[in-house]
Amino acid sequence: MQPEPNMDVAHLGHVEVLTPKLEESVRFFVDLGGMTECGRKGDSVYLRCYDDYERCSLKLTASKLPGVGHVAYRTRSPQALERRIASLKGSGLEIGWNDGDLGHGPAYVCTDPDGHKIELYYETEWYQAPPELRPAIKNQAEKFPGRGMNLRRLDHWNALAADIKANREFYENYLGFRLTEQIVLDNGIEAGMWMTCTNKSYDLAYSRDNTGSHGRLHHVTFAANSREEVLLAADIALENGIRIETGPHKHAIQQTFFLYLFEPGGNRIEVASAVARLILAPDWKPIRWSEAERKKGQAWGLKTIESFHTYGTPPVEEVVSKG
Amino acid sequence: MQPEPNMDVAHLGHVEVLTPKLEESVRFFVDLGGMTECGRKGDSVYLRCYDDYERCSLKLTASKLPGVGHVAYRTRSPQALERRIASLKGSGLEIGWNDGDLGHGPAYVCTDPDGHKIELYYETEWYQAPPELRPAIKNQAEKFPGRGMNLRRLDHWNALAADIKANREFYENYLGFRLTEQIVLDNGIEAGMWMTCTNKSYDLAYSRDNTGSHGRLHHVTFAANSREEVLLAADIALENGIRIETGPHKHAIQQTFFLYLFEPGGNRIEVASAVARLILAPDWKPIRWSEAERKKGQAWGLKTIESFHTYGTPPVEEVVSKG
Amino acid sequence: MQPEPNMDVAHLGHVEVLTPKLEESVRFFVDLGGMTECGRKGDSVYLRCYDDYERCSLKLTASKLPGVGHVAYRTRSPQALERRIASLKGSGLEIGWNDGDLGHGPAYVCTDPDGHKIELYYETEWYQAPPELRPAIKNQAEKFPGRGMNLRRLDHWNALAADIKANREFYENYLGFRLTEQIVLDNGIEAGMWMTCTNKSYDLAYSRDNTGSHGRLHHVTFAANSREEVLLAADIALENGIRIETGPHKHAIQQTFFLYLFEPGGNRIEVASAVARLILAPDWKPIRWSEAERKKGQAWGLKTIESFHTYGTPPVEEVVSKG
Amino acid sequence: MQPEPNMDVAHLGHVEVLTPKLEESVRFFVDLGGMTECGRKGDSVYLRCYDDYERCSLKLTASKLPGVGHVAYRTRSPQALERRIASLKGSGLEIGWNDGDLGHGPAYVCTDPDGHKIELYYETEWYQAPPELRPAIKNQAEKFPGRGMNLRRLDHWNALAADIKANREFYENYLGFRLTEQIVLDNGIEAGMWMTCTNKSYDLAYSRDNTGSHGRLHHVTFAANSREEVLLAADIALENGIRIETGPHKHAIQQTFFLYLFEPGGNRIEVASAVARLILAPDWKPIRWSEAERKKGQAWGLKTIESFHTYGTPPVEEVVSKG
Repeated sequence: MQPEPNMDVAHLGHVEVLTPKLEESVRFFVDLGGMTECGRKGDSVYLRCYDDYERCSLKLTASKLPGVGHVAYRTRSPQALERRIASLKGSGLEIGWNDGDLGHGPAYVCTDPDGHKIELYYETEWYQAPPELRPAIKNQAEKFPGRGMNLRRLDHWNALAADIKANREFYENYLGFRLTEQIVLDNGIEAGMWMTCTNKSYDLAYSRDNTGSHGRLHHVTFAANSREEVLLAADIALENGIRIETGPHKHAIQQTFFLYLFEPGGNRIEVASAVARLILAPDWKPIRWSEAERKKGQAWGLKTIESFHTYGTPPVEEVVSKG
Repeated sequence: MQPEPNMDVAHLGHVEVLTPKLEESVRFFVDLGGMTECGRKGDSVYLRCYDDYERCSLKLTASKLPGVGHVAYRTRSPQALERRIASLKGSGLEIGWNDGDLGHGPAYVCTDPDGHKIELYYETEWYQAPPELRPAIKNQAEKFPGRGMNLRRLDHWNALAADIKANREFYENYLGFRLTEQIVLDNGIEAGMWMTCTNKSYDLAYSRDNTGSHGRLHHVTFAANSREEVLLAADIALENGIRIETGPHKHAIQQTFFLYLFEPGGNRIEVASAVARLILAPDWKPIRWSEAERKKGQAWGLKTIESFHTYGTPPVEEVVSKG
Repeated sequence: MQPEPNMDVAHLGHVEVLTPKLEESVRFFVDLGGMTECGRKGDSVYLRCYDDYERCSLKLTASKLPGVGHVAYRTRSPQALERRIASLKGSGLEIGWNDGDLGHGPAYVCTDPDGHKIELYYETEWYQAPPELRPAIKNQAEKFPGRGMNLRRLDHWNALAADIKANREFYENYLGFRLTEQIVLDNGIEAGMWMTCTNKSYDLAYSRDNTGSHGRLHHVTFAANSREEVLLAADIALENGIRIETGPHKHAIQQTFFLYLFEPGGNRIEVASAVARLILAPDWKPIRWSEAERKKGQAWGLKTIESFHTYGTPPVEEVVSKG
Repeated sequence: MQPEPNMDVAHLGHVEVLTPKLEESVRFFVDLGGMTECGRKGDSVYLRCYDDYERCSLKLTASKLPGVGHVAYRTRSPQALERRIASLKGSGLEIGWNDGDLGHGPAYVCTDPDGHKIELYYETEWYQAPPELRPAIKNQAEKFPGRGMNLRRLDHWNALAADIKANREFYENYLGFRLTEQIVLDNGIEAGMWMTCTNKSYDLAYSRDNTGSHGRLHHVTFAANSREEVLLAADIALENGIRIETGPHKHAIQQTFFLYLFEPGGNRIEVASAVARLILAPDWKPIRWSEAERKKGQAWGLKTIESFHTYGTPPVEEVVSKG
């Protein structure tokens, strides 16, 4: 009998995005994204989508360069958190406990093998809407915004990493994520991975960073309610001078209906719809994509745009010049 | 050979809606409807949808009671306007020229047989968006709002009238509208009519007023881009305390996907989508609905809500008490 | 510390629906629903949706009366199955192992407290599409049908039961489901429950059977990809003489966008979209609805249709007359 | 005063498409497009969409090479037809009357300056659905198919022509179409035009044929009910081996949401949605696009695919070799 899957991580909790234009980034997510500002502390502004049950799902932090500060996963229970910490012991990736942050309690910090800072936490603050943001239907955390893209919830993040295999094994062995799809080059090197800890077909993706850099961000993704609303998001971006990188179109991998934008700080943001697709199989067999298959482009034939393979945050030239 | 259809009226231009809560009505149409305020004069506030090519499509006028002030149709040409005026001569419905209004030139005023004030005009002011409202694509009058219901354009209005047949003949004989659908009771009395002067399947509807009142409004309709956006409009209404009368659902008559709301002044407003339906036949044969057919309810079986048959603006009790 | 949630049941696997009109029911699900027939055995026809990873998700069995034959849940692992069986020991609800069925291996059978037959299994047959049904994108089980309602996957089932609380405790204590929403009458009696074993907001619902009958079915639900496709499903039902009970509209409870139909055998079928709503919180606090709240009707104000509270399969009069 | 617009042409009636693979083309339009075969005569098969009021809107004719046989416009009245014929007298483009065809009465034939065969007719056959295709709602010509792309109606056609200006003047002077948008190169040469005879923003488009060929077809377009259904059409094409050229995406010109496919005979077919966009202004001022503006690509940034500028039917190499 196979060992049983580890279900200890419940979901992606929040992402800290670094931005050289803090207030412009806030305006993008609030005015155009339809998100709510739910706190400020130090150099950071905390935001949330109307259906995120926790107080915050996006932390924007002022920074010289764009990029990702840290990514936090909530565990299924306090016990699950303890088990994950125990498993990390001796991995060489541990950093240790912090005191928590606005919106959640103490978190255990480690890095993935590429150097992205990862937090695990259980204690959290459930969002309490102020009167003017109380929803009409009480199973929803906050009033539907009716503003801009009406982003529903934080969906996943996509890292850039030099060694995909090492990161896959990190998530499998220490955090219990399951691989659902991957890209494997003809020479056997893994070039991309999509992993889940829920019934969504992925809660994270890692793409190979061909520049030899570490710890970079490819994009952060928010879920829209429908493909029609992804199309509306494209119009809203167009009308407001937000650069669209590519889309809307449908990925062959994971079949996500996507739109890639650049928020004012320079980070790539995806607005996406998975329609009704879920991974319900507990023993899902990962889908492997070859180089030849990738060259076919996206689902309906759109060629993958070059910048999608090269641009991440912080941009490499800046990392280098900063170095 | 049949005489040729008269194409002199080009389209519904604007509607003047009376409201006892002017500023609340303005807030509804602007903040929730996504419309733009484009002028104020006297007791009136002028509004427009982002795809209305004329400066104004909705005039809100402060009034003790809700209702309709006047309805204006733009003619296809100055000559067409002259012909319509000539045809009205001796009808007993003429009122005469006015000096125009914010957004359009002189209008010729008459009434329909039920007493609703009707204006015909040709000279108009094309909307010129200020810099902050300039659209990204230059074939659109104004920037897509990305706000609330994102209402695209004024679509049609629905009058209440004591004698439908008389009003049908007025529109056929004097204004050149074509009847596309109608309700005829078992006793032969016409109880509802839908008429067009464009390729939309209707630009106006008249429903029988069973109260013996005159000049009342059933509703004014704005077009949304899709049925999905009508559903979003329902959520926005729900979240903002706007009373939904009925819908979203699909009418059997005209197949319109509808949502009926009450704006704060008490007037019924419809948010609608016709999907891709158009009447292209120049010799369309009117569809006649019987009492029995009407009793089946709406397209997917929803029973027509009672207030839909009884409520109009001004409400009858108020008309009476005012009388 | 709270005991940890039990994640042993992975998802709803399939439902056996009884029908007095087997071939007509098959034609409904295949021709109008867009499902695929994937086997026949004895008096049963096996069907599947194009995105169900297992071979079968719906078993239609010829029967004198409509209703539900059994409902099957797949466990997360063989070990999880063993644990669930062990927990059931002494519950008085055990029936024991069967030899499996077309599409899955041996199943352990029990009943819920209301008498519905429940199967638990782990061994399953992954669907292998024949050449003509192979999908263009290899992360999908079967070609998108492009036929009728294009139902994507089995979503949940809704039982009728005399004692909701007893059934809730059964699912909580023996199967590890989590309660997400419930109806509690003013007298404290539970009248409805929605429970999940996934990140969907519910995988089953139980409604109180006011007739004192046992083991009846309220409905089986299939997921469509979008609300627009639920609307298309309504048109397809309308055009093909399939009776629509109510909808499309949005439930307040769980916010599901719903359409209720009767398949030719008399069973209620729901076509539904949850848009992007998921329950990601591992410690979700159940939402409790009162009698007063229920009386408000559905989300946008639609009154709940009377038959929704009274009709189930088999119909009570027939159960009684059969008795 | 300006002379009045001529409203004599009511709408595009049907298009004859030539195909070297007649039966495969029929299968594409019927099985995947959701269209209905409504007659056969000689080497031709006649098809229609469920909302076309006339019997036929697409005539497929077996031919060695793909391309367009003729395009037919219905006039608003018999008188309007006479006027159009009179105006053509002496134009050098007249061919004369034919005896009509399956679905319509006698037609007057001419060519546009590029040599495409154009028919004008008034007498037509309204579609009478056989019992199995009768719609549930009687204002619709035929039952909603619930099959494949559910194409609603013939929308427009797009010609290739060597001299756009000459063709624009032909449509303006002889047929009364209004120019809504156009492309004008930096050297003043017109490179594309979109014209309407209805309230749709275009009923035809002509694109410059850079090969010096004449009488070629760029594409024929069918309207889907929504953008969501254009996305579904893309999936249906993908799943059935129908080559997608580009899209779905949104055109900057006319804002049409488009999907370009190649039907099995080699002709380009567009599935499109205009959402709620209409041209209601009787004095619409044509939008002029410059070379620089065109280089920006489509609305959301998609670069126009090269084949879109070069491929038409019949393909040039074949025309030459046939020569």
